Amino acid sequence: MRKIEHLGIAVTDMKASIKLYEDLLGVPCYKEEGVLSEHVKTAFFAVGESKIELLEATDEDSPIAKFLAKKGAGFHHVAFDVEDIEAEIVRLKKLDFVLIHETPKDGADNKLIAFLHPKSSGGLLVELCQEKEG
Amino acid sequence: MRKIEHLGIAVTDMKASIKLYEDLLGVPCYKEEGVLSEHVKTAFFAVGESKIELLEATDEDSPIAKFLAKKGAGFHHVAFDVEDIEAEIVRLKKLDFVLIHETPKDGADNKLIAFLHPKSSGGLLVELCQEKEG
Repeated sequence: MRKIEHLGIAVTDMKASIKLYEDLLGVPCYKEEGVLSEHVKTAFFAVGESKIELLEATDEDSPIAKFLAKKGAGFHHVAFDVEDIEAEIVRLKKLDFVLIHETPKDGADNKLIAFLHPKSSGGLLVELCQEKEG
Repeated sequence: MRKIEHLGIAVTDMKASIKLYEDLLGVPCYKEEGVLSEHVKTAFFAVGESKIELLEATDEDSPIAKFLAKKGAGFHHVAFDVEDIEAEIVRLKKLDFVLIHETPKDGADNKLIAFLHPKSSGGLLVELCQEKEG
């Protein structure tokens, strides 16, 4: 894992949350992006080499809607930047980590992503992400 | 906020968790340190410019024991590195953020720290930290 690529934060009201995180972090939101396959809207802030990614559900089928109903707003996941996501998946499976996605899929922000199951990573929801080429 | 200084992760079994996070991150734990005033043991890992800090309660009065009883193991807080923690506290109070510590206190890893109340920061427990001089 080369760096913390981003922290994913579940929010209930994107507009109010963008204002809150702009105030908190002292930097503007630099990008808003929908991820249709995940039923989420996202908004990004830069902090050093990492990002904060706000996540709002677009409908009741969104994993974020289910998370909010169960745990409320706040931390959702941490994403680590990796050089070769397929090699990292192989390495982690050998160490008995359980992958939610055994094959990388497209994520927000021009990334290939895969999530680990939090039951195998100490209750922490972990995302691997690799910047797509080109 | 200049960077994510660390993520604080609550754990129930420090020895097993150090092994798990060494496997996950692919780097060794570089420091273990007790913080008597907070009733916690900590262990640190480096990931890019940030750290992962594991937190284990040393007794039932520890804030980590209370957190684990309520929410279980996993993400506890995010700490942002600031240049001048007193100026940052003044800035955030003016923006209606609520500080748990209005005066900085000593934390682990040679830092001055102050926590924001998660009710004023969208459910996210946020720590400010400034490296102590000398």
